[in-house]
Amino acid sequence: MSRYLAITGGVGGAKLALGLTHLLPADELAFVVNTGDDFEHLGLHVSPDLDTLMYTLSGLSNPDTGWGRVHESWNFIDTLRTLGGEDWFNLGDRDLAVHVLRTAMLRAGQPLDAVTRHLYTTLGVAHAAWPMSNDRVATEVVTADGRLAFQHYFVRERCAPRVTHIEFAGAADARVQPEVLAWLGAADLAGVVICPSNPFLSVDPLLALPALRSALAACHAPVVAVSPIVGGEAIKGPTAKIMAELGLPLDAGAVAAHYAGLIDGFIVDACDAALVERIAHADLAVIAAPSVMRTLDDRINLAHTALEFLGTF
Amino acid sequence: MSRYLAITGGVGGAKLALGLTHLLPADELAFVVNTGDDFEHLGLHVSPDLDTLMYTLSGLSNPDTGWGRVHESWNFIDTLRTLGGEDWFNLGDRDLAVHVLRTAMLRAGQPLDAVTRHLYTTLGVAHAAWPMSNDRVATEVVTADGRLAFQHYFVRERCAPRVTHIEFAGAADARVQPEVLAWLGAADLAGVVICPSNPFLSVDPLLALPALRSALAACHAPVVAVSPIVGGEAIKGPTAKIMAELGLPLDAGAVAAHYAGLIDGFIVDACDAALVERIAHADLAVIAAPSVMRTLDDRINLAHTALEFLGTF
Repeated sequence: MSRYLAITGGVGGAKLALGLTHLLPADELAFVVNTGDDFEHLGLHVSPDLDTLMYTLSGLSNPDTGWGRVHESWNFIDTLRTLGGEDWFNLGDRDLAVHVLRTAMLRAGQPLDAVTRHLYTTLGVAHAAWPMSNDRVATEVVTADGRLAFQHYFVRERCAPRVTHIEFAGAADARVQPEVLAWLGAADLAGVVICPSNPFLSVDPLLALPALRSALAACHAPVVAVSPIVGGEAIKGPTAKIMAELGLPLDAGAVAAHYAGLIDGFIVDACDAALVERIAHADLAVIAAPSVMRTLDDRINLAHTALEFLGTF
Repeated sequence: MSRYLAITGGVGGAKLALGLTHLLPADELAFVVNTGDDFEHLGLHVSPDLDTLMYTLSGLSNPDTGWGRVHESWNFIDTLRTLGGEDWFNLGDRDLAVHVLRTAMLRAGQPLDAVTRHLYTTLGVAHAAWPMSNDRVATEVVTADGRLAFQHYFVRERCAPRVTHIEFAGAADARVQPEVLAWLGAADLAGVVICPSNPFLSVDPLLALPALRSALAACHAPVVAVSPIVGGEAIKGPTAKIMAELGLPLDAGAVAAHYAGLIDGFIVDACDAALVERIAHADLAVIAAPSVMRTLDDRINLAHTALEFLGTF
């Protein structure tokens, strides 16, 4: 048996994750998920990336919004608005059941990984998805307008403030999910995939956990990352804007450089084939392949590319 | 100006309360509401009687269920059920906004009376409705099967266990809402109405607050109660079953006896006119009047009866 671990954040990462589940059974593939976006809102513990992956893998993701659940209704949030409650973070009626149940289970003393396993299992997801840590790690965006909790930056302020840098409060002391370290050190680990999530907001929180970063760097199996930057633009979200504000060149090469020392392979989009030679070096293999995932076949094909690539090391 | 205070619990009390608001403006009528049914469920602070009165006075009560909101949807609770969450206490999607907002405001340090005022005002209710106390008082039903929190007895167990007695945890030390005591002591108080709520489950929690009970007993204005027992049966809910289990005769007289020393007048239903002479005594005037409130006119007529009756003392 060969085992694979995939690191994923939000929507882009979940698309490749879905492709991977079509190629690998549950005992050969597991996910470790960013929880830096997690926040307490209206007294509820919201875990955006864990939920995005859960809804994606269970076939319940909302294709219209790109987040939340399919067949959603909005009577809760509409009513909350009329009552003068905070309505900047949209919560669907069905989605809310996940947040309320997660919060109640956490308050009852269950750790986040156990709650996550319950929710995923109940929705029929066979593959393991581990929060990067049961401890609280909070992504904080330091901007020209001040420090913002991630969701305040991302949703409430719609990524408008100029980013100076990004911090991950609690990361230094957070205990990494033990299964993640076990998989990274396992003799039968065949490879690690860093999915095309935002490197700065969605993957860096995991890399900010010292034990996870060093386990990834020391891992005997190859690690490949898929660029979320295609043709000099981000597929989705604020990646491009943030890279510009951080003074980084807006191309896939900057993403590869960001993962330097951690990855053995890098996949750029087919439209960026001209960058392959420029990015590759003695310690980094680079290939170009179609990476824009519109259909399920696109997701499976990119997953296939990543696994084949891992097999070349 | 003359002021009136009405004591109310759940659905039956709220019906008469609505009738009273059609006859008296907001500066002449206020309500004090049972909070012994309040409980924490799924991490949410639920205040059933405060909400029943709020929805009733704002025209949002659900005529089909007798509780909760009109035009309700159930996607949250349906989803929670599929996730293996506790679903014995039904929570509508719109109703949930009230519970989530109340809980968030309480956690942010606001007292229950302020939260209640915010919610009522936002829904357009002009009359003041005070929780009997900002402190936690919990109605506990001691049954042949053990001690049950009120909602576990009332909703989860559907009032099936045989009641031995009823306790109100926290009542001895709870601080009565100051405005209630101020109204009861006010020179211009013209009367108090004890609405036809369950005497043992909905009114007794208020009477278990020592300062509220003694203020009511000492009150210079007349106090009248409306019997929730009509023709030897309860209009709604477990009143009759509980009276039988407590060894009480199942008629309006037992309710009048229960309020002995607190009330000056008692209203039985027109169908119980034969009881008037039996119940009345030197310190208790009794009248018979139509008290089954099916229509808005029924509610207003009974309110009119109660106010006229108060005027006779």
